[in-house]
Amino acid sequence: MSSPLDGARAANAAFYAAFEQLDAEAIASVWSRQEPLLCIHPGWEPLLGAEQVMASWAAIFRHTSYMEIEFEEVAADGDDRVVWLHGTERVRQAGEAGQARGEVVATNVFRREANGWRMVAHHASPAPR
Amino acid sequence: MSSPLDGARAANAAFYAAFEQLDAEAIASVWSRQEPLLCIHPGWEPLLGAEQVMASWAAIFRHTSYMEIEFEEVAADGDDRVVWLHGTERVRQAGEAGQARGEVVATNVFRREANGWRMVAHHASPAPR
Repeated sequence: MSSPLDGARAANAAFYAAFEQLDAEAIASVWSRQEPLLCIHPGWEPLLGAEQVMASWAAIFRHTSYMEIEFEEVAADGDDRVVWLHGTERVRQAGEAGQARGEVVATNVFRREANGWRMVAHHASPAPR
Repeated sequence: MSSPLDGARAANAAFYAAFEQLDAEAIASVWSRQEPLLCIHPGWEPLLGAEQVMASWAAIFRHTSYMEIEFEEVAADGDDRVVWLHGTERVRQAGEAGQARGEVVATNVFRREANGWRMVAHHASPAPR
């Protein structure tokens, strides 16, 4: 039997795959449709609710031409309905603002729903240099 | 009957009370003793495990003479064993580095254990100006 952590990890992997593919539909399918949803991109104000959150991904993808993210899990825990994962995102990206690489620390929370594990919170902030 | 969110909110309030009182013992009693524990102070590297986490609070308190934190909850969810809370910390502080005020966004995760709700993750990052 797979553990709750494995289910949430699979959803987390799908999140980063959609992020790399700059695929707004795929990333929307990783997120829950049940409020509350919370999303903090590095340095942004917190975004609340599906409408704000999905609009932010669409905007980011529109202004990005290339995205590579390696997520390294640092800690994870939870039960059979709520799991949090924390890790480091190593990011290489290109877009309208040029090329950049950097490290981000991210805490992601997933909830198990009727159709599987879905993201409900993503708090990302720049790692210290 | 109180809801899981209320139990976690009470632990969250105890966390900020201990933070304001600069009381390392009180803040240690809010945190779980079960790994994994994760703590990110704004702009710091992630700290893992009770030893690192508690040493960080002791260091912060040693260098701080006054701390006032108003936590405003923005989103919260979970089940009867794991709850996450997200909110804004409005901070006024004084210490060796002088006086400062600022806003921090924080995602706090709590786990219900035999002795009640305990903090297992605290991810704090500077709010955009």
